[in-house]
Amino acid sequence: MKVFEKLLEIQKKNNSLLCIGLDPQLEKLPEGIQRNTFGILEFNKLIIENTKKFVCAYKLNFAFYEQFGSEGFDLLEKTVELIPNEIVKIADGKRGDIGSTSQAYAKSIFQHFGFDCATLNPLMGVDSLTPFFEFDDKLNFVLACTSNPGASDFQKLRIDNRFFYELIIEKFTDNFTKEQLGFVVGATNELEFQSIREKVVDNFLLVPGIGTQGGNLARILEINRNRNIIINVSRDIIFASKEKNFIEKVIEKTLYYRNQLQVV
Amino acid sequence: MKVFEKLLEIQKKNNSLLCIGLDPQLEKLPEGIQRNTFGILEFNKLIIENTKKFVCAYKLNFAFYEQFGSEGFDLLEKTVELIPNEIVKIADGKRGDIGSTSQAYAKSIFQHFGFDCATLNPLMGVDSLTPFFEFDDKLNFVLACTSNPGASDFQKLRIDNRFFYELIIEKFTDNFTKEQLGFVVGATNELEFQSIREKVVDNFLLVPGIGTQGGNLARILEINRNRNIIINVSRDIIFASKEKNFIEKVIEKTLYYRNQLQVV
Repeated sequence: MKVFEKLLEIQKKNNSLLCIGLDPQLEKLPEGIQRNTFGILEFNKLIIENTKKFVCAYKLNFAFYEQFGSEGFDLLEKTVELIPNEIVKIADGKRGDIGSTSQAYAKSIFQHFGFDCATLNPLMGVDSLTPFFEFDDKLNFVLACTSNPGASDFQKLRIDNRFFYELIIEKFTDNFTKEQLGFVVGATNELEFQSIREKVVDNFLLVPGIGTQGGNLARILEINRNRNIIINVSRDIIFASKEKNFIEKVIEKTLYYRNQLQVV
Repeated sequence: MKVFEKLLEIQKKNNSLLCIGLDPQLEKLPEGIQRNTFGILEFNKLIIENTKKFVCAYKLNFAFYEQFGSEGFDLLEKTVELIPNEIVKIADGKRGDIGSTSQAYAKSIFQHFGFDCATLNPLMGVDSLTPFFEFDDKLNFVLACTSNPGASDFQKLRIDNRFFYELIIEKFTDNFTKEQLGFVVGATNELEFQSIREKVVDNFLLVPGIGTQGGNLARILEINRNRNIIINVSRDIIFASKEKNFIEKVIEKTLYYRNQLQVV
């Protein structure tokens, strides 16, 4: 089954557009959890076990695993194994390189780690990302307009009456179908979200920037009008509490978001 | 000592502007080398031992290690340890993400693995890469104009009478000094190389695209006119032969390039 269909199916089954970002940071771990990669594995396991009925996907940002080197990649392998098959696994690495190198990245993400989706950086052009799309049952999310202030530096530049992020979207939608191609659009950019949503009616949008980063969820959902979307929340859920009973707060926060993110 | 100075020092000592890219691929390993990560470690060790007097740097592209997961990161850790301290170690990962995430990537590259330099993707703007520059004795190479055909898709777009790669260069040189900031410019773009070299007179340029990718080394050196530069060659050196005595060919190829890349 294509990931595109798997995603629609689990969104319906769990009645949720919510993705939880599993981005561990040692100094933010709650009481009672060891401050090392063993502790993080236990932490990730508790979160997955207690939230898996309320999400459509988990997104793992590679940076937070790479900071521990080979131990971190071991943790990444083990965390991926804990995620039930029916739930979509997103590798958030924002990769992109010349073709032969992207091929190695794609193998790493889809074959070695077994992810369903990858986030990709389009700066080096369509050919640089093609090896990811050659895994044709997978779904890739290309960065369009990100949630950080620096998105204004380049992504929002105007070029011949269009924004740079619009050129990115055009170039990639010209080359790949909606089953293979989604875009990352930060929730902090409401205007840009609106113009992108009008442009790519059927493609999935992966939306970070809700929670700690301050994006307005209600407004994004209103603009989106039930089109294909995944809303990611990381820190605001997983670090909801530093107390020993943190998992209760994690469930509470998960339900808080999920209640706003039901499919119907 | 700042990496900027370390680089000038080793270029002088080894009389070489050559960087060798250690980008292992199982199917290209020579006869007599095991086709697994143990074999690659032996392969890398042989290459480093036999070329370390003729190079200023080694560049390790993370993709070729990540494809083996935690075993690959273990291999990366062990390979970095084999490189003598006086030689510059470049982490080629083309990273870039929102600030808190880039901080984790920077920690991974500079603290965990102990690299001197990183290659960075500027698409998400200056704030997205600032955490790398906070390690202020390190030298970061920001992608300006890459060696693949897709560089035309976005990097060579014209915006208000300038090329997009020129905007990237201006934005980053406005924010960081030459001691901290270099750029990646593919050897396959002679015209762009010329315009960039005129713009950033003192910053280091890291130049891939020589060898297998077809860039013209003599022409690049002529345009460069003895300014700060590192020329990277990967496949054309490390996979010079599939025979059992491959290391002789590796040395031969290394000397072939190094003889064109002397400092004086």
